Amino acid sequence: MRAMTSEFDREIASEPTGADTYGGMFGNGFTIGGGVNGGLLLAAVGRACSERLEDVGHTQPLTIAATYLSAAGPGPFVVTTDLVRQGRTSSVLRATLSQPEGAVDEEAVAARDGRADLTAVDRLTTLATFAAGLPADQPHEAPDGSLLPTAALPDIPPVEDCVGRGTGPQVMGGAPGAVELLERVDVRLDPRCAGFAVGRPSMRGVVQGWVRWADGTEPDVMSLLFMVDTLPPVSFDLGMPGWAPTVELTAYVRGVPAAGWLCVRHETTHVAGGHFEEDARVWDSAGRLVAQSRQLARLPRPLAGS
Amino acid sequence: MRAMTSEFDREIASEPTGADTYGGMFGNGFTIGGGVNGGLLLAAVGRACSERLEDVGHTQPLTIAATYLSAAGPGPFVVTTDLVRQGRTSSVLRATLSQPEGAVDEEAVAARDGRADLTAVDRLTTLATFAAGLPADQPHEAPDGSLLPTAALPDIPPVEDCVGRGTGPQVMGGAPGAVELLERVDVRLDPRCAGFAVGRPSMRGVVQGWVRWADGTEPDVMSLLFMVDTLPPVSFDLGMPGWAPTVELTAYVRGVPAAGWLCVRHETTHVAGGHFEEDARVWDSAGRLVAQSRQLARLPRPLAGS
Repeated sequence: MRAMTSEFDREIASEPTGADTYGGMFGNGFTIGGGVNGGLLLAAVGRACSERLEDVGHTQPLTIAATYLSAAGPGPFVVTTDLVRQGRTSSVLRATLSQPEGAVDEEAVAARDGRADLTAVDRLTTLATFAAGLPADQPHEAPDGSLLPTAALPDIPPVEDCVGRGTGPQVMGGAPGAVELLERVDVRLDPRCAGFAVGRPSMRGVVQGWVRWADGTEPDVMSLLFMVDTLPPVSFDLGMPGWAPTVELTAYVRGVPAAGWLCVRHETTHVAGGHFEEDARVWDSAGRLVAQSRQLARLPRPLAGS
Repeated sequence: MRAMTSEFDREIASEPTGADTYGGMFGNGFTIGGGVNGGLLLAAVGRACSERLEDVGHTQPLTIAATYLSAAGPGPFVVTTDLVRQGRTSSVLRATLSQPEGAVDEEAVAARDGRADLTAVDRLTTLATFAAGLPADQPHEAPDGSLLPTAALPDIPPVEDCVGRGTGPQVMGGAPGAVELLERVDVRLDPRCAGFAVGRPSMRGVVQGWVRWADGTEPDVMSLLFMVDTLPPVSFDLGMPGWAPTVELTAYVRGVPAAGWLCVRHETTHVAGGHFEEDARVWDSAGRLVAQSRQLARLPRPLAGS
């Protein structure tokens, strides 16, 4: 275990407050428009589940399916865990992150996404599988000795040719309000996917770039639960900036990331009926796929004035 | 609502047995190697959730994330539902399907997948979002009038050029024991993906084909929850026949299917650490994407004698 020193680690940390409950505190560092980023909530749940399963050694997330129930804000949070099955090599938990009523600046969040249920205590509920170990590095061989499929790094320019914050905060903004989050994550977008910032989305439904912690912390497994939902939604690349609420997101951890930049690619293949799916893939600096996620999200309503 | 006449409808049907519980009975019709097919369990949970939400009109599944806990067998089942959030246009439920101890032919199932937890009562636990309506048919337009991405039907030969059961039951078998399921679903595999049946898998990690109910019932939304997990796993196409246990499966319903054959495509992009992800997509006879799913599954152990 590395020392708990990074802001991310402090944000997602929690202490036991009962047999199956863990309490922590969100600061202001990972907010967008007043609300805490959804990936941070997922990582906080992941951390609490990992603590819950420490005695049986199932500390590594394999899959987490999450339904977002209401917007979270800075302030205290509680993760309640419910052990569904404890197996030999993996365990299944239900885990729910909640906040006390009144803990959130409801006006700021309502201005962002207009939800009517801001007094709800539950923010995020999940169904998770944790395992003793994570996939080994080596590619698998079929019985005949041939290599099995692995997802290769996409076609993406090197970090130095990608677009960082220096080109203007609007590249990563879009949601009204301050985007504190962007002080925490160093994002370099593929210029071919960054046209939305200047009113020229590619209309392909792809957003990809390089990401790393701005404070120099190297990525770990819990970071992956955050990084799968960090880039702007693919709806930005489809000419629809604005808040795209997640209906459901399932994350799959496929490996332990090497140190260095992570490559993240978001894409959609199908927009229909007011929803789109967004698939995220994360590769580490060695070019290995280390995480995947899929979410179903609602198309944004047009922004005021746009 | 159509009349409840098909065997599939009867299999997944349940009646209220309490405020939040629904009881039903699995027959022998949808078994593989003695166990009830996982897609049938998912559809049974979907049906019970739909009943649970009938009074608020949220009867259409939008997303269901499922973790399989133990093997199910013919016999009685109970679905317990827990309303997590009731919104204006959608509701979130946790729902768990269980069977009484001793309801399953444990020896038959153990021979298939060797799980040690066959006395567990819970078979499948889920986190589901149901909505008032399903996506409309028309493709979406971006604000500038351009069409947004939609997933087109894959390159697949017409039904009459695909491989049905007439070429031998081994095409769709692979798990030891009888495959009653194949009497219920008419499957026609793309010949380019059917080589595994004769020891020549394509090694691409793709299995696709046309499916419909053998009894002539037209597909409905609940059928989609079954059809996302009906074809042989992509591991068959990677030279690894055998049982590939699902760790987690999330299904997304994207539309109401038209009458006629459904096209189902399973593919994987990444095999590592003993796991692979399998993405399934289902198109209706009008070529519209109507469902997607992703599962993380364990690679099969080699079959005895292979």
